Amino acid sequence: MFGEIDHIGIAVEDIDGSLALYRDKLGMREEHRELLDEQGVEAVLLEVGDAHVELIAPIDPDGGVARFIAKRGPGIHHVAYRTRDIDGDIQKLVAAGLRTIGDEPHPGIRDSLAIFVHPKSTGGVLTELVQPAEDH
Amino acid sequence: MFGEIDHIGIAVEDIDGSLALYRDKLGMREEHRELLDEQGVEAVLLEVGDAHVELIAPIDPDGGVARFIAKRGPGIHHVAYRTRDIDGDIQKLVAAGLRTIGDEPHPGIRDSLAIFVHPKSTGGVLTELVQPAEDH
Repeated sequence: MFGEIDHIGIAVEDIDGSLALYRDKLGMREEHRELLDEQGVEAVLLEVGDAHVELIAPIDPDGGVARFIAKRGPGIHHVAYRTRDIDGDIQKLVAAGLRTIGDEPHPGIRDSLAIFVHPKSTGGVLTELVQPAEDH
Repeated sequence: MFGEIDHIGIAVEDIDGSLALYRDKLGMREEHRELLDEQGVEAVLLEVGDAHVELIAPIDPDGGVARFIAKRGPGIHHVAYRTRDIDGDIQKLVAAGLRTIGDEPHPGIRDSLAIFVHPKSTGGVLTELVQPAEDH
């Protein structure tokens, strides 16, 4: 269930300014860009081996990422692990006493399925499970 | 230079309490434990595929991790990328206008060499480069 890091989510104020750092200075390849209306963000995936840095910039001033930046400034927002059985893993997490945000997976980037575990369950770490499109 | 995630550093108040979550509930294997006096932390590496979650708990109340927790609470502290040429990468970072914390790599966990890039250079993200012992 937590056998692989899928991505590190980084809250940024400005996608293009952040690409000037991550793509142009640090040399990560830009792999994908998508508006995720439901989460109120524009997201870019940058390739890091088998994993990714996911830059997320608020497009909704009342969304979670906008509130995160207003409170703490831009920075690391969440860590996501890859799964091949998100429904089974949600059951295991709940059985272990952890709390997910919502009961069901929601559509994520690149047609994945995703769910967040509440940071109150995970020592302040917003933790995501992602099942890629090819695995569901 | 940023081709692989080495670990996600997570600031925790209590290593054993956090192992009850990461090892016992999330099922990550505990791979290594070490006191890092210079950084004022006790650290545990948990296996996540080829990468790790690094739990770091303060042992020095005036150290950086203790101050991080006092200010922001426990949570994601840094992201580290693996390199095979830390000296060359430091030169590249400096040439690109980024600021490292210190000029030279310092001894890190498991006899690695490590250096932090200042979060002011990286949009609020404390970013580490790690060269494993077998590569230096």
